[in-house]
Amino acid sequence: MTDDIRLCRTFQTAPAAVPKDDSAKYLVSALESEGFQAPDWLVPDMEDGTAPDMKAEGLENTIELVPEYEFSGEIWPRVEWSYEDEEYCEKGRDQIDRLVAEIGDEIDGVVVPKVGRLEDVERAAEVVAEAEAEHGYADGSIGLSIIVETGRARSDLREIAKFGADSRLTALIFGPVDYAAELGGRNLGDGMPRWDGLLEALSNEASAGDLLSIGGPFDDLFKERAGLTYYNADAYADQVEHEAKLGLDGSWSLYPKQTIQANTIHMPTPEELERDVHKIERFNEAKREGTGAVTIDGQMVDEATFKTFRNTVQQVRAIDDTRPAQTEDYYEAALLERARELELSYR
Amino acid sequence: MTDDIRLCRTFQTAPAAVPKDDSAKYLVSALESEGFQAPDWLVPDMEDGTAPDMKAEGLENTIELVPEYEFSGEIWPRVEWSYEDEEYCEKGRDQIDRLVAEIGDEIDGVVVPKVGRLEDVERAAEVVAEAEAEHGYADGSIGLSIIVETGRARSDLREIAKFGADSRLTALIFGPVDYAAELGGRNLGDGMPRWDGLLEALSNEASAGDLLSIGGPFDDLFKERAGLTYYNADAYADQVEHEAKLGLDGSWSLYPKQTIQANTIHMPTPEELERDVHKIERFNEAKREGTGAVTIDGQMVDEATFKTFRNTVQQVRAIDDTRPAQTEDYYEAALLERARELELSYR
Amino acid sequence: MTDDIRLCRTFQTAPAAVPKDDSAKYLVSALESEGFQAPDWLVPDMEDGTAPDMKAEGLENTIELVPEYEFSGEIWPRVEWSYEDEEYCEKGRDQIDRLVAEIGDEIDGVVVPKVGRLEDVERAAEVVAEAEAEHGYADGSIGLSIIVETGRARSDLREIAKFGADSRLTALIFGPVDYAAELGGRNLGDGMPRWDGLLEALSNEASAGDLLSIGGPFDDLFKERAGLTYYNADAYADQVEHEAKLGLDGSWSLYPKQTIQANTIHMPTPEELERDVHKIERFNEAKREGTGAVTIDGQMVDEATFKTFRNTVQQVRAIDDTRPAQTEDYYEAALLERARELELSYR
Repeated sequence: MTDDIRLCRTFQTAPAAVPKDDSAKYLVSALESEGFQAPDWLVPDMEDGTAPDMKAEGLENTIELVPEYEFSGEIWPRVEWSYEDEEYCEKGRDQIDRLVAEIGDEIDGVVVPKVGRLEDVERAAEVVAEAEAEHGYADGSIGLSIIVETGRARSDLREIAKFGADSRLTALIFGPVDYAAELGGRNLGDGMPRWDGLLEALSNEASAGDLLSIGGPFDDLFKERAGLTYYNADAYADQVEHEAKLGLDGSWSLYPKQTIQANTIHMPTPEELERDVHKIERFNEAKREGTGAVTIDGQMVDEATFKTFRNTVQQVRAIDDTRPAQTEDYYEAALLERARELELSYR
Repeated sequence: MTDDIRLCRTFQTAPAAVPKDDSAKYLVSALESEGFQAPDWLVPDMEDGTAPDMKAEGLENTIELVPEYEFSGEIWPRVEWSYEDEEYCEKGRDQIDRLVAEIGDEIDGVVVPKVGRLEDVERAAEVVAEAEAEHGYADGSIGLSIIVETGRARSDLREIAKFGADSRLTALIFGPVDYAAELGGRNLGDGMPRWDGLLEALSNEASAGDLLSIGGPFDDLFKERAGLTYYNADAYADQVEHEAKLGLDGSWSLYPKQTIQANTIHMPTPEELERDVHKIERFNEAKREGTGAVTIDGQMVDEATFKTFRNTVQQVRAIDDTRPAQTEDYYEAALLERARELELSYR
Repeated sequence: MTDDIRLCRTFQTAPAAVPKDDSAKYLVSALESEGFQAPDWLVPDMEDGTAPDMKAEGLENTIELVPEYEFSGEIWPRVEWSYEDEEYCEKGRDQIDRLVAEIGDEIDGVVVPKVGRLEDVERAAEVVAEAEAEHGYADGSIGLSIIVETGRARSDLREIAKFGADSRLTALIFGPVDYAAELGGRNLGDGMPRWDGLLEALSNEASAGDLLSIGGPFDDLFKERAGLTYYNADAYADQVEHEAKLGLDGSWSLYPKQTIQANTIHMPTPEELERDVHKIERFNEAKREGTGAVTIDGQMVDEATFKTFRNTVQQVRAIDDTRPAQTEDYYEAALLERARELELSYR
């Protein structure tokens, strides 16, 4: 993690148009979300979440509605694309061009699915660069994030992330459904594979390329037991905790309750914050007193150790900047105040 | 998976010569196999399955007997090779030359073991190309499959599979025994490692390079319990199911009962076939009726989804073409007929 | 594994200076270690194990004390370094220069932590080469081992190991603490991830590059239960056995009791030695009698199989050469004698 914290605890897709009287129902609901239901990234979805015959309407909904709301997180529409079908790339190119032309100031970037090898990702980046130039935006002002969901993208993950380190590429998001279909993965009664090798590589390559890494969607939203159908909170939390453990920066959400859970799991716990604020306070005291060896609670504090403490505080500050309702709800006021005021310099 | 289905649910090795009165006993038995005991690929083995002093006889058995049987699957003799020992490469070169010269029309390709890095695989491909040209076969008519069983081949797996995408390379087969010996893997009481990272990469790289991926052999053929020795069906099925789950196309068989199990697990279940035939039938109706949005049983059917349904049907058709005894035994006649007659075009 | 066995069952770090009356207490204790407590590699630690204000003293302790003891294993001081901070690289350069200048005859190489991508490893190798040349040592006489503990080093692991095959690079050691911090891995109650993908890759790439692979430290040295605090033997043995199973050559030790356990687990068991000595004895008899097919106890012995037997014996001989107290303690005298005298040639 770098010092410049970029948050994406939650990557919430919302279909940009659905076959209801109000076709923008879900998009509006996400744009209006508050508190822990507000995702860090809201992704108006013009790809698999929107029916083929409603995609045009989804694009219009996005262009019309996004500017109407003061959504405090980032906006990243997902467009169409496919490394193996030129027709989808053309659609994606048109969607990107319209989005940048009409609401280039309102979006942080675009999400491109079904990319193939490095060359295909470079091509998608070029499409964004062209729209940016065409419509007068500064180079790099519109980001690119990709869904890793093909054998080719997984095969080139290292090369894609290296390219990403010096480009507009921002996040690598896992897409397990298309991925499993492409590899021929099967559910033989105990679920689909978790693809642990891919998840570990995603976390590593994102870290090596200073990118964000995000887990895949979990669509068993509800569960039925003993006559009752209820939100499947445990299974989603298990998946998100597994992703957090491996160092993924965020998780995919399909639903407001999922957003609450992913936002919570991907922020430092009150215990983690208390511990690391305390360590830095002690470190700062020792520095002031000029004691040479900086050993705190029996642990030697070198620069690497200091950075892990600082990272916790910086993450909380980043959340506090855009989502004060969440930090004020989750942490004691006094602790939050200490985190806000702490001096964070090692030297 | 591409539209052009190539089957290798079962990669059955048979020693090309054994120290018995009839040295070709196992080879003949495999060539005569019927029904679910007939493997997709039969591999007359001149390498580790045949004793050093019987390898010459194994080659003669193969050349003499393969043409005598109407084996309906593919024939892929395994020759000798080693990235670290020129002597074995020379033997392999001679065996490949003899096989192509004498039965080039009868074999689909050769299996080369113990390959090292990409350069070694390219060299093996060149040996096949030379034999092919020397004996008047069209370029690419004799395939090459390799056993991935060295640290070097695993290290270069991505590069080998990329090379494979435009070459005669057809399948990547895992060889766990030599692999574990080379890495120094040990059984400390709970078995050897399963090498999950390698299996996941094998599935991915094969998919990215349009190759087949095949799991390793399982040699605990029999089990003893309560005074009885019996075929170890559960443990083999567990391994094959694990491989199928990860998207491997087939499994290694050492024994007719293993072939029955691997053939069965790597074909769509009757439930999977019924489900996907039904989806395509409904899709085709909707297309005929001209309804715009194609939503079937609550699921939106885009091209990617359609492909997964079609893939099931195409696999069954491919098996039905070469192994009608298996499809007719495994599926209800009416369902099989629907699968045979279905229109499979998305547009 | 190559025929030329290089041992590193145990990579024991000892802080080069600690804030005690005798600042070299732990270093001396390691240099004096005997029997199973003597590690194959002793690593005087001037990096994270020594406080910032004691590092200079740690360097002097190492230079002064290492020549005073007849330590029979290898000596590999760990210096400072960081791919992302030039200041640490400068410190490392000075430490390497002093070590080679003063005790270049006594050390086998240096351990460099926090390396980044291949270019950074090449740079570290160049620093060693310069010190070597400057102080009159033959090219390659001072080795280099690296701690793999950054996303970049993991990302370039294949390329680093390929470079290692023709260079002074000797061992790849996993560093889980910095690695988890860099990736943002978290302990959410059930411990940190084991990073199975990394461990498998480490074993593979080390094998492909003829390098040694070593697991990471385990620092829950003690456990408290039912009022008693005691050495956490089980948990450490579990980790070391997992590493041995995957083919890692050795494990990191922080403590004499850990060294006993890692030395033991990473050497062939008496049963393994008895079995493989027996196989080679039978093989040698068969060779003398001129029987063609070499089948022993129902198992065909080809060159690959023979190598696995020989590897066991060669490892025991390598331990026996430097650590006779261990082999004499661990194996029956008669068995050890048979292992020492065996003819080990296949042809």
